[in-house]
Amino acid sequence: MEALTYTPEMWSGMFADRMSTMRKSAVRDLFEAAARPDIISLSGGMPEISSMPLDVVARVASDSVLKEGVAALQYGTTPGRIECRRVACDIMVGDGLSDIDPENVMLTSGAQQALDLLGRVFINPGDVIFCEGPTYLGALQAFSAYQPEFHCIEMDGDGMRVDLLEEELRKLGRGKAKFVYCIPNFQNPTGVTLSDERRHRLVELSHEYGLPIIEDNPYGRLRYTGDPIAPMRSYDPNVIYLGTVSKIFAPGMRIGWIVMPPEVFAKVNHAKQGGDLCGSTINQVMVEHYFHDTEWESVLATLVKKYAERRDAMLTALEDFFPKEATFTRPDGGFFIWATIPGIDTKKMLDVALAHGVTFVPGVGCYPDGRGGESMRIAFCYESPENLREAIRRLADAIQEQR
Amino acid sequence: MEALTYTPEMWSGMFADRMSTMRKSAVRDLFEAAARPDIISLSGGMPEISSMPLDVVARVASDSVLKEGVAALQYGTTPGRIECRRVACDIMVGDGLSDIDPENVMLTSGAQQALDLLGRVFINPGDVIFCEGPTYLGALQAFSAYQPEFHCIEMDGDGMRVDLLEEELRKLGRGKAKFVYCIPNFQNPTGVTLSDERRHRLVELSHEYGLPIIEDNPYGRLRYTGDPIAPMRSYDPNVIYLGTVSKIFAPGMRIGWIVMPPEVFAKVNHAKQGGDLCGSTINQVMVEHYFHDTEWESVLATLVKKYAERRDAMLTALEDFFPKEATFTRPDGGFFIWATIPGIDTKKMLDVALAHGVTFVPGVGCYPDGRGGESMRIAFCYESPENLREAIRRLADAIQEQR
Repeated sequence: MEALTYTPEMWSGMFADRMSTMRKSAVRDLFEAAARPDIISLSGGMPEISSMPLDVVARVASDSVLKEGVAALQYGTTPGRIECRRVACDIMVGDGLSDIDPENVMLTSGAQQALDLLGRVFINPGDVIFCEGPTYLGALQAFSAYQPEFHCIEMDGDGMRVDLLEEELRKLGRGKAKFVYCIPNFQNPTGVTLSDERRHRLVELSHEYGLPIIEDNPYGRLRYTGDPIAPMRSYDPNVIYLGTVSKIFAPGMRIGWIVMPPEVFAKVNHAKQGGDLCGSTINQVMVEHYFHDTEWESVLATLVKKYAERRDAMLTALEDFFPKEATFTRPDGGFFIWATIPGIDTKKMLDVALAHGVTFVPGVGCYPDGRGGESMRIAFCYESPENLREAIRRLADAIQEQR
Repeated sequence: MEALTYTPEMWSGMFADRMSTMRKSAVRDLFEAAARPDIISLSGGMPEISSMPLDVVARVASDSVLKEGVAALQYGTTPGRIECRRVACDIMVGDGLSDIDPENVMLTSGAQQALDLLGRVFINPGDVIFCEGPTYLGALQAFSAYQPEFHCIEMDGDGMRVDLLEEELRKLGRGKAKFVYCIPNFQNPTGVTLSDERRHRLVELSHEYGLPIIEDNPYGRLRYTGDPIAPMRSYDPNVIYLGTVSKIFAPGMRIGWIVMPPEVFAKVNHAKQGGDLCGSTINQVMVEHYFHDTEWESVLATLVKKYAERRDAMLTALEDFFPKEATFTRPDGGFFIWATIPGIDTKKMLDVALAHGVTFVPGVGCYPDGRGGESMRIAFCYESPENLREAIRRLADAIQEQR
């Protein structure tokens, strides 16, 4: 038989069907542009950790090897070290969850792997899943690998319109959707917080319709104004809850976790065995040491103060520079503001904005269905107040030019 | 509507179809038993890193934070730091690959994540994939999440029977299988090495039938006797090649990699965005420092010497204690010996063996189709020569009792 030469065309015929529906990340694709020194980036959700006490973290890293010994360098169990899962429980006490059993906690490679594993465990191609509209683009991406049918529920100033979810559930019937994915605190991308009343109603609906809730809470500790609202997991142990150290310590550790009922835990554990065998042992040990042996809460308090100033700087700049017809959210915490400019195609505008030296995430990236065309996600976490003001000025210029 | 209470039965009706065909890991399930102090474990493939110079690694960890600064703690790019991908290229020179472009290298969370991502990118449910029979149980597990049809090709002392693969390919036709997965050096679980002649023939078949090769090489540097054989990737850039630091440094780092043609790289990058956004930055920095700034090759040489002694101890014990009708492989490197005892159901025997204080991996775990019932994978990597001898004595007793 004649030998074949591998060509791009030949490869492209070999890939699995799921690759054609798998979403790309608007943020990841902007990563390189965002690294250019002339660009002010409002696109990434990278925490501003420049004030992290490096000598403290270096000691944590060194101690992790010296005190834990070779165990820190060896393979670990699939759900992770029980010591680190206990640290996750300690952290969650501050989120309003005081009764989590570490045996129900599974460590993941950031909360992103948690989303992937939950998608793998629950979603058959064509299954309906609910999420907020707009929602976290990384969740769209993770779940899309399993080819669900996304139903995005509109939001208002109190978060997901749970009444609209109920309407959809009533039409669909009991047990017909796989889960509802929700970021109740300072949602990504809108910054909006789900009200206490709606959280309770969502839990009721979860039981009326047999619809599991995935409660993703990466930003809960980053509240700048207003009072904390109890997580749904605190009154319903069936809620699947996601946490992470990415925003309160370091994303480079890739330590997140899932709190799950035992039935779900067993399935996710099974899926994770094939996915990566186990997470990084040494990173788990470092997280243990950081949260046990350092003044992490004062480091976090400094961070929160800094983020609050940045939010305020961005809001002021939006008022000063953005056109009057634009609307934008006023988050009580987190990293993001969601702005909408009637008549502007924000995706088309991105090139103009780049030319003006600023990036953002076009709103369409945060919907699975083409909505969000006049909106954008702008992050206030990573740049100084001065840069944020300059960035919003540049954005306003870009809008002007785009008209 | 009446509210539902979540029950185990209710949950079990919610999971995706793929969960019912997803394989469990015999090794992971033995993890707890293997940790009991009275047990000598021949089941895990854990490297013996007790002689790892902890002070050196602690300095590496500390330096990674101090010299790299906050970049070591931040999110990274999806394929990983280019510096660490260059280190992977440096390591591969010692494996016989001198011309790898770091742009074609993607870092993964151990080579296990590489298997998962390749499964995700290539496999539609029902697709045929080829592997050695028996093969690495973690590969069976990773690929099974994507519901392929496994075709296991029998092996002999020279590795996969490439002639039998050719027969199957001839029947199946060109472009009808997604890939062949192969561990050419000191294969897991048999310890057998694919001969040079067969490697070349496999590459020819890959071109005749449009069948991509996945060449997994975790053990290549752990050769105790005989001469190295060039990897297939060294004469065909279409070969997808997997590497890892798990066996030459520390599995707890979870740093592996894939070398891929650009077309495959783009797809895997896309899949990895949704899977975990990025790997651990700090672990990548630690790997850079370890392989740049320490005497890692002399640490490895000590390890190799130790493993060679252990292999010899196990082979001698097998000759001394195992029944005459038993057969076993005589690997030139790696971690594993494959033993077959006619008339013994090794899976049933596992409980007896545990009662005798020894674990192993039953052969059926290394096949997707129920074969391997009279075989077992026994690892000589982790226990001292004395313990290995005692373990084989116990195993022989268990065999006696099982008769």
